[in-house]
Amino acid sequence: MPPRYAYLGPEGTFAEIALRSLAESRDADLIPVETVADAFAAVRDGSVEGAVVPFENSVEGAVTGTLDEFATGDPLHIAREMLVPVRLSLLARPGTDLGAIRVVASHPHATAQCRHWLRAHLPEARVHAAPSTAEAAAAVAEGADATDAAIASPAAGTRYGLAELVADIGDHQHAVTRFVLAVEPGPLPRPTGADRTTVVTLIADDHPGALLELLTEFAVRGVNLTRIESRPTGHGLGRYCFSIDCEGHIEDARVGDALAALHRFCEEVRFCGSYPRADGEAPRLRPGTSDGDFRAAAEWLDRARRGTA
Amino acid sequence: MPPRYAYLGPEGTFAEIALRSLAESRDADLIPVETVADAFAAVRDGSVEGAVVPFENSVEGAVTGTLDEFATGDPLHIAREMLVPVRLSLLARPGTDLGAIRVVASHPHATAQCRHWLRAHLPEARVHAAPSTAEAAAAVAEGADATDAAIASPAAGTRYGLAELVADIGDHQHAVTRFVLAVEPGPLPRPTGADRTTVVTLIADDHPGALLELLTEFAVRGVNLTRIESRPTGHGLGRYCFSIDCEGHIEDARVGDALAALHRFCEEVRFCGSYPRADGEAPRLRPGTSDGDFRAAAEWLDRARRGTA
Amino acid sequence: MPPRYAYLGPEGTFAEIALRSLAESRDADLIPVETVADAFAAVRDGSVEGAVVPFENSVEGAVTGTLDEFATGDPLHIAREMLVPVRLSLLARPGTDLGAIRVVASHPHATAQCRHWLRAHLPEARVHAAPSTAEAAAAVAEGADATDAAIASPAAGTRYGLAELVADIGDHQHAVTRFVLAVEPGPLPRPTGADRTTVVTLIADDHPGALLELLTEFAVRGVNLTRIESRPTGHGLGRYCFSIDCEGHIEDARVGDALAALHRFCEEVRFCGSYPRADGEAPRLRPGTSDGDFRAAAEWLDRARRGTA
Amino acid sequence: MPPRYAYLGPEGTFAEIALRSLAESRDADLIPVETVADAFAAVRDGSVEGAVVPFENSVEGAVTGTLDEFATGDPLHIAREMLVPVRLSLLARPGTDLGAIRVVASHPHATAQCRHWLRAHLPEARVHAAPSTAEAAAAVAEGADATDAAIASPAAGTRYGLAELVADIGDHQHAVTRFVLAVEPGPLPRPTGADRTTVVTLIADDHPGALLELLTEFAVRGVNLTRIESRPTGHGLGRYCFSIDCEGHIEDARVGDALAALHRFCEEVRFCGSYPRADGEAPRLRPGTSDGDFRAAAEWLDRARRGTA
Repeated sequence: MPPRYAYLGPEGTFAEIALRSLAESRDADLIPVETVADAFAAVRDGSVEGAVVPFENSVEGAVTGTLDEFATGDPLHIAREMLVPVRLSLLARPGTDLGAIRVVASHPHATAQCRHWLRAHLPEARVHAAPSTAEAAAAVAEGADATDAAIASPAAGTRYGLAELVADIGDHQHAVTRFVLAVEPGPLPRPTGADRTTVVTLIADDHPGALLELLTEFAVRGVNLTRIESRPTGHGLGRYCFSIDCEGHIEDARVGDALAALHRFCEEVRFCGSYPRADGEAPRLRPGTSDGDFRAAAEWLDRARRGTA
Repeated sequence: MPPRYAYLGPEGTFAEIALRSLAESRDADLIPVETVADAFAAVRDGSVEGAVVPFENSVEGAVTGTLDEFATGDPLHIAREMLVPVRLSLLARPGTDLGAIRVVASHPHATAQCRHWLRAHLPEARVHAAPSTAEAAAAVAEGADATDAAIASPAAGTRYGLAELVADIGDHQHAVTRFVLAVEPGPLPRPTGADRTTVVTLIADDHPGALLELLTEFAVRGVNLTRIESRPTGHGLGRYCFSIDCEGHIEDARVGDALAALHRFCEEVRFCGSYPRADGEAPRLRPGTSDGDFRAAAEWLDRARRGTA
Repeated sequence: MPPRYAYLGPEGTFAEIALRSLAESRDADLIPVETVADAFAAVRDGSVEGAVVPFENSVEGAVTGTLDEFATGDPLHIAREMLVPVRLSLLARPGTDLGAIRVVASHPHATAQCRHWLRAHLPEARVHAAPSTAEAAAAVAEGADATDAAIASPAAGTRYGLAELVADIGDHQHAVTRFVLAVEPGPLPRPTGADRTTVVTLIADDHPGALLELLTEFAVRGVNLTRIESRPTGHGLGRYCFSIDCEGHIEDARVGDALAALHRFCEEVRFCGSYPRADGEAPRLRPGTSDGDFRAAAEWLDRARRGTA
Repeated sequence: MPPRYAYLGPEGTFAEIALRSLAESRDADLIPVETVADAFAAVRDGSVEGAVVPFENSVEGAVTGTLDEFATGDPLHIAREMLVPVRLSLLARPGTDLGAIRVVASHPHATAQCRHWLRAHLPEARVHAAPSTAEAAAAVAEGADATDAAIASPAAGTRYGLAELVADIGDHQHAVTRFVLAVEPGPLPRPTGADRTTVVTLIADDHPGALLELLTEFAVRGVNLTRIESRPTGHGLGRYCFSIDCEGHIEDARVGDALAALHRFCEEVRFCGSYPRADGEAPRLRPGTSDGDFRAAAEWLDRARRGTA
């Protein structure tokens, strides 16, 4: 039986594009699911090997539903990350004229990224929110409701038999969405020298300065953060946990040491995986933070404790 | 002519509840608008005195659209904040039976907050995304589409003539949404001793450790942060600005001094207002951070520079 | 053959008092030496088991010669510390009248501590510098030169047959000198729960902020410093090493971890011993810094690296 | 009447060399005094315009007596600093043979700097402590006691008619002593762009981490320290004040702001002067720390407080 992977569907989403970019997807069954929650549930109940979900977008920011799924429930790991350029097209049923478009549907993030184009070219059109860009395309194809056009990927246009009225209507060139492959915890991908590590930390005693202390634990070990998001814990305004990406692999001494330090004074540190960076960018190590430096220091400490340093 | 205030509509939203809690709204025209962007546009073009929009929710986190409106475009100020408990009810047309409900609509944030209740009591129901809880209620009332029930405030039920099938179906007791009144920049509300200040900072040279430095400027002056959100700048993954709330008023010496310090090394510091805290909580000042301490230090420095310290 | 211990002599010094307070001195040969350098040389060449030398004084500060001996040459360890109250008396040959005193001798530190008394009671007297308080007393006893009186301990008066003209002439009540027992490196004293650790650190790349980084390594692990002295390295003004005392024993996880961190980015960390505090004061541990916390964090890290956290 | 300047005498000391390097000394009366305390007393009672005293030495470190005089009593300012290379010679009465030398006298700091030479060339000689190198030379010249040779500057040899048996016997090439001109507080020297500022700080509540906080106040404003010394306050071991030199002039915004910050949370900040650096080294300013940056930030703050930022 081939392996099965879920992705945030329906067919034609950027998530599908992300999944298809992975070698793992080659001979696998690719299963579209309706929500991020469904994707995580499928991994947790073992019905798929992994699930590809959006994590953050260079224009719209974090996908909070994904962050929250990693932060709560049974822990899952990120095994891979994929960067997918966001190419957004205005799609309609073949034969539709731009001037005739009254209602445009898309995922709100996509709509937001085309704000200026819409204002300039379709100032009168109403904008409807759809659960995903692909679902908007599907709805237009079905012609079931009053929607005349969708904002979605060219691939979604192909998938649903829509015409690409206008290509690249996003306001930001080079917009990109970062997807991750969520899997059951297990043996980690080997360090590649250009890795990223994701954790969620819940600060035990949420005093002023707690975030500063947390960042200091990374900084003293020369570990750079590439993303930090505060998310509510659900226990009232002003109570947050932090979702953090840092450079390096938990096998790297500096990264492991920093996370262990967090573990000592945080109520919870949830390790969400170490995995190769999609951009292949290797960190520049500060002097004194290499694995060799940590090993030499441990050996020195051992000698000092025996009185032979 | 009475003053005019906009709020994120339609009628019956929590935003309307928030606006009505303000003395300013008493004899004013209250105007529902469709989107956060519309609300900001109305303030910016002077068609209203101010607009009430959601800012953050204790369960779902920041309202990113609001943060982004404050971060870009012509600057607006927050003049007031309001905390509105989120009471969510299942609303349907009178006579509807719980067992007959196939499709539920609401704003995705509201749906997310009722996740457990839905799974337990309406596991088969499909969930549709609506632009707001009130709009979902309106749609149910109209009966135009296939939606059987809405998740919205009791007030929305009253407004649209719906029956409250089940009250308080939110998973989190005490969930609360913080709303703000956005206004044109102008003279600030006077310090009350229990104030909050909001800024957006864009770090000039986005080096590792920049966030640590930013937090240190607040910490050395004893200014506690109550919220910090990273938001993408639109210029690629890994490039963020920070939306920050801190304790105190910009008129307070410690707060003004901290913001001025940020101004020196940030590419941009956008001041978004100082205003009374809705919870009335006054900060506990660390020794050496009162206005008197700052005044005494400035006088000492003046004497020292004249050689008479 | 009984063990041999050196002390900064001659007989009658506070160093002798310090050495006699140690159980080790009971049946040992106690050997006065002329200089701190001689004391260290005797330990290094194995002619004594250990040497008692002054380390710092509550009024005059560090004994820089002692610091420099620990910082250079073959490493020695501190095995014990002793606190000796500094009681200074004006001593003279029996029959001497206070009014007849023209010249007073003592060690400059002792003289400095009696500054106010001398100004008030012997304003006309000349003050001569002697290598030690006891040597000053010996010289007065010999009557060899023009010195009429010495400032030294009552014990020195007894030892050299001098009369105590005035007792307790020190300006500071409760002045105290801290002595240490320097020994060859070897197995360390066991942790007692109220220990102190001494190190000398030479910062590799003496950039601005290096001291701040060094202190931060202690602070993040909740290790308090009880003393820090900058000492020149001999390589020009502005080039310093730091002699540091911190709370705790190098066997304590938090202390060992902090020193290992210094080892990673300092040119040299010279461990000078962990030993019981003479004042018996135990540190109050910050949450997350106990040995158990470090152990739990290491175990968590191990699980996380195996993918089972 | 010509101005009068004191220096740590007697004639022929390095302090005299330092004083003579100042333009101020040209037509002034130069008055040797016996002790650092006498020098400060002369300035304080107005009998001299200023006094030149040693401050620190690249080999022996701080001159603690000088630090303590600046830290206590009526405040004095440093108006100038001078760097004097320490050239040490072995001086004896003409006709003395090196082999005949049994007793060598000098200031202990000078002796310490010639340790290796003495061990190699005069291993049998006894070393006597003199109040100053020049006094040692004077004593040898007088032939009053048993001293055969002095370690002092060539100038002292000339002054007292001694022969220079061996030149440059110091162990460290390039040893240098930094002298300062102490004056009554008054109008400060103008900023030159390459200045130094000296302060003494007494931390109010001597908690762990206080030194870290103090250093942070300098660091966040980009002010580099060039020297920091802990000195006992006289109130028991573990209670220290800090004598600090930093780059820049108190007129510089970043320096003044840092000192004012210290003033807010220290029990005492004693300003000891801003003066041109003897080495002429100008600081490299970190972005955001120039006077212009501070001015722009203050103007921005002013506008923000008026609601016009």
